[in-house]
Amino acid sequence: MTLSEAAGALRRQRASAVELTRSALDRIERLNPRLNAFLAVLPEYALERAAQADRELAAGTDRGPLHGIPIGIKDVFDMRGVRTTGGGLIYKDEPAVRNAAVVERLEAAGAVIVGKLNMHELAYGVTSENPHFGPVRNPWNHEHSAGGSSGGSAAAVAAGLVFAALGTDTGGSVRIPASFCGTVGFKPTFGLVSRFGTQALGFSLDHVGPLARSVSDVAAMLNIMAGFDSRDPASVRHAAANYVPVEGGSLGGVRIGIPEGWLRRYIDTEVENVFRRAVTRAVTLGAEVKPVNSPDIDEVNTLGQVLLLAEAAALFEKYLERRGRFGSDVLALLDQGRLIPATDYINAQRLRGQLQADFARVWAEVDCLITPSTPIAAPRLGQTTIRVGKTEEPARPLVTRLSRPFNVLGTPAISLPWDLTGGGLPIGLQVTGPPFQDALVLRIAAALERTSPPVPPDFSR
Amino acid sequence: MTLSEAAGALRRQRASAVELTRSALDRIERLNPRLNAFLAVLPEYALERAAQADRELAAGTDRGPLHGIPIGIKDVFDMRGVRTTGGGLIYKDEPAVRNAAVVERLEAAGAVIVGKLNMHELAYGVTSENPHFGPVRNPWNHEHSAGGSSGGSAAAVAAGLVFAALGTDTGGSVRIPASFCGTVGFKPTFGLVSRFGTQALGFSLDHVGPLARSVSDVAAMLNIMAGFDSRDPASVRHAAANYVPVEGGSLGGVRIGIPEGWLRRYIDTEVENVFRRAVTRAVTLGAEVKPVNSPDIDEVNTLGQVLLLAEAAALFEKYLERRGRFGSDVLALLDQGRLIPATDYINAQRLRGQLQADFARVWAEVDCLITPSTPIAAPRLGQTTIRVGKTEEPARPLVTRLSRPFNVLGTPAISLPWDLTGGGLPIGLQVTGPPFQDALVLRIAAALERTSPPVPPDFSR
Repeated sequence: MTLSEAAGALRRQRASAVELTRSALDRIERLNPRLNAFLAVLPEYALERAAQADRELAAGTDRGPLHGIPIGIKDVFDMRGVRTTGGGLIYKDEPAVRNAAVVERLEAAGAVIVGKLNMHELAYGVTSENPHFGPVRNPWNHEHSAGGSSGGSAAAVAAGLVFAALGTDTGGSVRIPASFCGTVGFKPTFGLVSRFGTQALGFSLDHVGPLARSVSDVAAMLNIMAGFDSRDPASVRHAAANYVPVEGGSLGGVRIGIPEGWLRRYIDTEVENVFRRAVTRAVTLGAEVKPVNSPDIDEVNTLGQVLLLAEAAALFEKYLERRGRFGSDVLALLDQGRLIPATDYINAQRLRGQLQADFARVWAEVDCLITPSTPIAAPRLGQTTIRVGKTEEPARPLVTRLSRPFNVLGTPAISLPWDLTGGGLPIGLQVTGPPFQDALVLRIAAALERTSPPVPPDFSR
Repeated sequence: MTLSEAAGALRRQRASAVELTRSALDRIERLNPRLNAFLAVLPEYALERAAQADRELAAGTDRGPLHGIPIGIKDVFDMRGVRTTGGGLIYKDEPAVRNAAVVERLEAAGAVIVGKLNMHELAYGVTSENPHFGPVRNPWNHEHSAGGSSGGSAAAVAAGLVFAALGTDTGGSVRIPASFCGTVGFKPTFGLVSRFGTQALGFSLDHVGPLARSVSDVAAMLNIMAGFDSRDPASVRHAAANYVPVEGGSLGGVRIGIPEGWLRRYIDTEVENVFRRAVTRAVTLGAEVKPVNSPDIDEVNTLGQVLLLAEAAALFEKYLERRGRFGSDVLALLDQGRLIPATDYINAQRLRGQLQADFARVWAEVDCLITPSTPIAAPRLGQTTIRVGKTEEPARPLVTRLSRPFNVLGTPAISLPWDLTGGGLPIGLQVTGPPFQDALVLRIAAALERTSPPVPPDFSR
């Protein structure tokens, strides 16, 4: 059942919010010990909120599509009275005293938060193999990574523990786990969704985004999440919009670009085949598909990596005296970040401005770009290098290769489940477009979306 | 004669643009060899532009208050066909191929640019003792500095070589020379005036601003200079306004704050006495004057210094292989900037955001702040330390002490001539207010302004 279907069932009195929530809590109790998607479950709180949602609906107060719907949030979002771990050990063991802006907004829309989701330590990595809280397991194959950093969010949505979840995306951290777990994950335009009350990683790269089981569902989440907030210095005033695409949209007249230069190397053959089938489908649906020249992807990613290394180190260096509190991968990245000179960081930001200007020319030619969301399907847990073609590549830069550019650019980017590889693991299709054309990207994604998304074999019940 | 008076004379046919321009050129020829305010004079170009301005006026085409007025521009502004030195030797000896945005705007308004003005090397210093082109001399006393970095701009205006000039201000580079030379100098809100085509120093601190002989005159310049420009990434869309204050404005109902904590140390006794007389005058004019608590000035300045050291080094490090092309003071600052870690720079930018938020509380209490523009009057040429009270202070941090905070904050800030010290050197009064309240700051400055600004003794003829 998707979020929209659950919302319909609530209104037709086929289900109550309490029933949906109890069912979510039961499923979490049964499946989470294996998946390790939730770090904290809040049964009393959730059931009380659900009961209130039911009372409101019975009294004729309808807060819209999220009203009474059980969701989960990545453990980077402050929720009053609950500890925010950020997937790490560095913060004091104290409950948060405020709600993150998105928690405020979702709760005001009647959403029922059932718990906080596991993730890569400090959101600084792509495997969600958390050294302190254990790995998130991929619902499609428990020996594989759920992706990261929002691994718990994607696994919980894919396994049907919740209808939707919140994640954050600094280099692909919503889209990568969405691709690996077969869910939809959306990174909105930089500045569209407030990050107030959200643990930061890289202040010029961090985005808050929703995961769910359909494009419409992430769009329904975005409708509630988007909006100016003076408490986030990067928040942008932008006219309110309805992001939910109309059903049965066509791709007639839509110009889809393929950055062929980005797909020439470092891509799994099977993933490429899946992607080419998506391209064929786009043409069948009436789109004009054409190759586009775009700036060198390695340059974009190097620049993004310099920005993130420095920004993350700036944020966490005050905790580095207690080195034992960090996992080794995160520690290495923080140490590396402290060695970057300010001049390199500043020049990377200047070059970023030029890249954004270069991309303005791409957006004059096409309405969107499509790529695979990730160059590979989910690696096995513990795997640090991956064979692509003839070479063995380090996992981290490989996995983020196609997602990180759109954190550098700040464009809206979605991953939607496309197909399964021969190994039975999902792979996502990424659609991105010009800044603040979130509605367009969602509309194109909805038209491309398959009506029956893949469901993990063990979780179809 | 002020700019407004010259504009009036043109329209009453008491003078022609050609006469005004010829007179400016004559004066430059006579006085510049000693003052060294101009690096390049453009007599043919200026006379041709002036003749065109006269033809237009005769034909009934009136481009407004700048039409036919001779002005000068600091040698950081690109002017098509003329070399931009930036006060240094690092650039190729080639004419610029474009106009800076402000040059475009001023020429479209009919201004006659007569030449390019001397400055501190690369705008990176406050004395305008240029190692390549010689020092700019203070019109009040040739043995003293004109201040910097826009020293040529202030000296040319003070000595009556031009009616107005353009400068840039990264840590006080418009206001300091205005204070030292007895002219008005205005740094608009960050983002209000485009920097396209202007040699940068610190991209998050650089402002373009006008200098002239009255508050009205800088406001008339700002009317033409302000406006959004997509070619400057920091340019802000802001509603057009008329910045020229109405005459005879009162200070009734105006709340003026004095950051007493900032004036407790490092200020020359005589300058403080001049300042206190300005405070008394403000009260006499009907203002409510009160002390305000503001963040620690040393912290603000340290932060501003970290930002500038890093940003300037990022910009110029590619030229550092040819060390002989830099003066020793600039070279030392660039070398220092290369040693700043990205984490320190990023944390300085984050702290800056907090300071801006802290100041929002100041702006809730008062409409503006006033301080002396500089804690001392113009030092002697060659002086690198200055005795203040019982201690000998390095000149650079001392001179920028009261101006740099408003580059960090991005607020509009003006220096207007206030009085002469016993040594016969001018000292300016600084007025600053909330971001984008440029019109308010100019209105308050105009009400405080003395009707007869001081005129350098040698130049009253």
